[in-house]
Amino acid sequence: MRKGLLIVISGPSGTGKGTVCDVLRKNNPDIAYSVSATTRASRPGEKNGVNYYFHTREEFERMIENGELLEWAEVYGNYYGTPLKKIEEKLAQGIDILLEIDTQGAMNVKKKCPDGLFIFLVPPSLTELEKRLNGRGTETQESLDRRLGSAVAEIEMGKEYRYVVVNKSVETAANEIAEIIKAERHRTDLNIDMLNSLKQRKEIL
Amino acid sequence: MRKGLLIVISGPSGTGKGTVCDVLRKNNPDIAYSVSATTRASRPGEKNGVNYYFHTREEFERMIENGELLEWAEVYGNYYGTPLKKIEEKLAQGIDILLEIDTQGAMNVKKKCPDGLFIFLVPPSLTELEKRLNGRGTETQESLDRRLGSAVAEIEMGKEYRYVVVNKSVETAANEIAEIIKAERHRTDLNIDMLNSLKQRKEIL
Repeated sequence: MRKGLLIVISGPSGTGKGTVCDVLRKNNPDIAYSVSATTRASRPGEKNGVNYYFHTREEFERMIENGELLEWAEVYGNYYGTPLKKIEEKLAQGIDILLEIDTQGAMNVKKKCPDGLFIFLVPPSLTELEKRLNGRGTETQESLDRRLGSAVAEIEMGKEYRYVVVNKSVETAANEIAEIIKAERHRTDLNIDMLNSLKQRKEIL
Repeated sequence: MRKGLLIVISGPSGTGKGTVCDVLRKNNPDIAYSVSATTRASRPGEKNGVNYYFHTREEFERMIENGELLEWAEVYGNYYGTPLKKIEEKLAQGIDILLEIDTQGAMNVKKKCPDGLFIFLVPPSLTELEKRLNGRGTETQESLDRRLGSAVAEIEMGKEYRYVVVNKSVETAANEIAEIIKAERHRTDLNIDMLNSLKQRKEIL
């Protein structure tokens, strides 16, 4: 059986990775999604267990201590993290699983799971990124400046990812990521069982 | 500018990599093809400079001595090799180039160009491989036995390649390889110029 693929998607704030991942999920229902745990306040319409698992700081810190998170990070004063147990279960079953996390978190996952598929989503330009952050309407001027300032440093982090995808349009970016996932499913290290069985005189298909 | 991708395709004898690469080339005229040098006799219909560069053993050995080959190997008593100069020129121009070579040659290329894209094509089963070798009609019983015997060892070599593709049908295999190539064009190491320019406040598209 083919092993599951741990897909990690990051990008500078405002690149639109949430929207791209939503379309990717809709078009590829075979990819499981990891719901992150967070201490940030829920935005209107967000549901616990669907968009995030919402926790108090005390709860979150207990999860860190108990080793229940694949990675976690504090971003703009809030904790974000990835519950470990469900991911391990799904990968063992051959299910591909998608993590949409920030660069700090992704680098922690890379240390623990170097065989993951690391994709970095970038905006077409810094000018375009600024436009998108302004359009979101949830940013204060201070937080906008902070996000733009850190974008350049975050883009540099992109060099740690295997693939880079430009978010020209949501559909195009989602399709390009789907193609990368489809290609990576052919990776030899995920298909060792198939290669081994091929050496015996029996049909593999 | 994106760097060119060196695509290396191998597989056990009789897997059909020649036919698959022909379809891949026809469907993807943007991929340049490396014409190999060889000392084996030309088969009916093969043209010098198109299918192979046909050489005498003396000429071939002079090319080895002069370092004019990216890789070379002796297979079933004949030399096969890849002329280096044209490949370097095309990669520098951002052109992707396809090498269809045996596992020995591929492993030599891997040492010199670890950033190449290494794809291993396998038959659906050993039984199917035997059928295809028989159907070719150009094999003696002795050479057929030898090829089948070495197929198992060659399949083990597949673990040295990043991707494995099963040749269920020529069109399917050619399409799957085309998708892998398309995905790998997003590799960060081929797109460093784009990432660097993105950090400046200018449009990259």
